[in-house]
Parts: sequence; C-alpha cells; structure tokens
Amino acid sequence: MATTHNARGIVLLAHGSRDARWREPIEAVAARVTALDPQARVTCAYMELAAPDLRTAAGALVASGARRLRIVPLFLGMGKHAREDLPLQVEALQQAWPDVDFELADIVGESPELVDLLARIASKP
Amino acid sequence: MATTHNARGIVLLAHGSRDARWREPIEAVAARVTALDPQARVTCAYMELAAPDLRTAAGALVASGARRLRIVPLFLGMGKHAREDLPLQVEALQQAWPDVDFELADIVGESPELVDLLARIASKP
Repeated sequence: MATTHNARGIVLLAHGSRDARWREPIEAVAARVTALDPQARVTCAYMELAAPDLRTAAGALVASGARRLRIVPLFLGMGKHAREDLPLQVEALQQAWPDVDFELADIVGESPELVDLLARIASKP
Repeated sequence: MATTHNARGIVLLAHGSRDARWREPIEAVAARVTALDPQARVTCAYMELAAPDLRTAAGALVASGARRLRIVPLFLGMGKHAREDLPLQVEALQQAWPDVDFELADIVGESPELVDLLARIASKP
C-alpha cells in the first residue's frame, strides 16, 4: 500500500533508566500518541541505561516503512551535552537514510503549554 | 500579618544540571506558578548538580513564613532510587519542622493530563 510506504514515524526520546517503572510514563505517552493518531508509528528510545537507543529505534521505524520521522525529546531541560550531541545523532541518521525526512523537535520543556500545565499541577490546592 | 504566617510554599523539585540553560524550563514553571497564584511562595530545588537542594529550599520557605509546603517532583519518570529516597527526605523535613505541613506530590509524569499534552505535542503534524 502506498500509505504504508509514506508512513510517519514518531520517536519519543527520553533519558532512560534501568528501572522499568521509570519508563512507564514514557510508554504511556506512546500509547496516547497511538490513540490520538492511529496512523503514526510510535516508538520510545532512550539516551542511556535502557534500550532501544535512537538509532535502533529509528532503524526499526524506517524498516517498517516510515519515510518521515519526527524525534521528540521528552526532556524538561536540556544540558550542553545533549544540546550538542542530539543534532549530530540526527544528522547521522539522515546520512544513513537519505530518503527519509528526519525532524528533530524542540524539547517538550520549551512548550509554553507544557510550562503552563506543570504550573497548574504544581499549584493545585 | 496572619496570612504571612500561614503562607503556602511550593518547591519545584527537578533533577538538576550544571548547565544554567537546563534549568530555564524549571524556572519558567516557577514564574508561571507565581502568575497563577501570587500568594504562593515558590522555589526551585534540585536533586543534584545544582543548588539549592530540597532541604535548603524548604528551610528558606519555612524561614519566610510558609506553614504548608508542597513538594512537586518535576520528573517524567522516577527510578527506584528517587522513589525510595524522596519520601525519606520529606520525612526528615517533617521531623526538622514539626509545625509545618509537608506534602509530597506525585511526580508530574503520573498526571494523565500531562501524558495527554505530551502526546499532543509529539503528534503535531
């Protein structure tokens, strides 16, 4: 099917932890993305301490037919290391799969809507 | 003033980083809490790599008159170490200041509203 070969992939990229419970909220976001957009292929990936890493996750989505791939860092803050390293990782993906459109989204902590919601959660009576 | 001595304090507790830019979204949440609830006294605190730590931040709010103190972990996920350590830290605060009501909120990653917003951000066209 043509749609299969033009599918959109979304990688939810999180810090990672050896602890499976740490990953539950990330996996909950993935399930919610699928509920909101059943056409999208969604996978979680982790910077460290958990599998898969970004390259493995991206490769699996490409192998499954994704031709547009949005990488969304589920970080509230981003330090110097990730800020410098992540664009290089995405550039390497683009070189590995030149016929796929890769997009690196802003970290979620830069979303004014997210800042507002966190403030509302924090200030609950 | 009586209100001064019954003030509510909110500690936004985040992981921490040496990088000041990492902390910007956390500080943006603090500013937004103040905008939503100008009566509340809000401060950021960090588990590591940045100051102040939770005890220092809580002590400053208590010294400024806060008698109810809500600690809100701005974590998407929580690993075993923080899950075990954080309640002990809050218990130690309660013992240090027995006349203050301490409340440890759930991590924000457990909020269904937050999961939904993260999914909406991730699945933007």
